[in-house]
Amino acid sequence: MTEGKGSRGRPGYDLDSLLHTAVKVFHERGYDGTSMEDLAKRLGITKSAIYYHVPSKQELLRLSVDRALDALFAVLDEPSSTDGPAIERLHHVVRRSVEVLVDELPFVTLLLRIRGNSKVERQALARRREFDHLVGELVAEAEHEGSLRLDVDPALTSRLLFGMVNSLIEWYRPRQGLTKSEIAETVTKIAFDGLRRR
Amino acid sequence: MTEGKGSRGRPGYDLDSLLHTAVKVFHERGYDGTSMEDLAKRLGITKSAIYYHVPSKQELLRLSVDRALDALFAVLDEPSSTDGPAIERLHHVVRRSVEVLVDELPFVTLLLRIRGNSKVERQALARRREFDHLVGELVAEAEHEGSLRLDVDPALTSRLLFGMVNSLIEWYRPRQGLTKSEIAETVTKIAFDGLRRR
Repeated sequence: MTEGKGSRGRPGYDLDSLLHTAVKVFHERGYDGTSMEDLAKRLGITKSAIYYHVPSKQELLRLSVDRALDALFAVLDEPSSTDGPAIERLHHVVRRSVEVLVDELPFVTLLLRIRGNSKVERQALARRREFDHLVGELVAEAEHEGSLRLDVDPALTSRLLFGMVNSLIEWYRPRQGLTKSEIAETVTKIAFDGLRRR
Repeated sequence: MTEGKGSRGRPGYDLDSLLHTAVKVFHERGYDGTSMEDLAKRLGITKSAIYYHVPSKQELLRLSVDRALDALFAVLDEPSSTDGPAIERLHHVVRRSVEVLVDELPFVTLLLRIRGNSKVERQALARRREFDHLVGELVAEAEHEGSLRLDVDPALTSRLLFGMVNSLIEWYRPRQGLTKSEIAETVTKIAFDGLRRR
C-alpha cells in the first residue's frame, strides 16, 4: 500500500477531512471568527497537527475555494463542453454545474459567499469572473448559431442561469429526497424549454 | 402643511432615510457588528435622535425586513395575482417580484441574508417561508390546470424560479444599464418559454 501524504498525519485526519471540517466551522462561525485553535478543538487534534498539513488558515480557505473552482472549471474541459453545437455545450455546462454544486456543496457555498476581503478571496473572485465570462461567451455563441432566442441579453442570461444554479446553496440539503440528477434535469428543462406546457 | 412624524425629528432624517442608512451600514459592517453609536456617527446625529424614531437596533432590523416582505406580499394581492389562469398569475408574481427586488434592493438583500439568529429574524424567515409556500401553491395550481409542464416538481420549481429572481441581489447594481422591466422580461421569458429558439 502506497503511503499518501495524508496517512502520515494524525490518524483519521488527512487533508481532505481537515478541509471538510474547516469549511463546516467557517460556515458556523464565519471565516474571520474562526481561529486555528477553534479548528484544532473541533478536530480533537493539536494546532501543530493542522500545521503539518497547511501553513495557515488563509491556506485552508484557498484550498477550499480552489476545490470548488477546480471542479467548476473541470466541467468546461469535459468533451461535451467543448464539442458540438454551442447550445448543447451550454446545456451540458449547466447540468454538470448543478452536479458539482451538489457534490461540493460546502466548498461552493464558501466560494459564493466570499466578498474579496483578502488576496486569496480576490483571486477566487477573479477565477469566478473568468468562469462567468466563459459561460457568457457560450451563451453568445449559442445565440450566434441561431439556437438560442435572440431577444435576451447574453450577459444577463448567463447571470440568471447561474442565479438559478447557484440558488442550490440556499435551499438544497442532502437527503431531502431529491437526487442531483433530478435537480439538474429540472434546471435544464426550465432554462432551455421553459415551464409552459406546449 | 401637515407636520408628519418624520419632520419632527432632526432635519433631513425621517424614518425612511434612517432605514436606508441603517441598512447600508448593516451591509458594510454586518448587523451584529453595527452599534447604535456607529449609526449615529454615520447619520451625523445623536443616538437620542435615532431613539426618537425607533426603540432599538432590533426594531430597525424588523422595519427593514418587513419593508421587503410587505412589498413582496403586496404583489400577491394585486388583481393580476388573484384573477385569471394560474400560469398568468404566476407569471405576474415572478415579473413583479423582480421589480420589487430592484425597487427595494438593500432591504430584500438584508432579508435574504438573515439566518434566524433572533426573534425578529425568525419571524422574517417564517414570513419568507409563507411567501414561498404561496408561490409553490400557485405552481401546483398551474400544473393542475394543465398549463405547466408536468414533469417538474412544483416545490423544486418554485425554489428554482425564485433562485433566479433572488440572484439579483448578487449581481444587480443600479445604473448598470439594465432597466427593471428588461430584467423582469428576461426572467419571465427564460422561466416560462425557455432559452431554446423555436
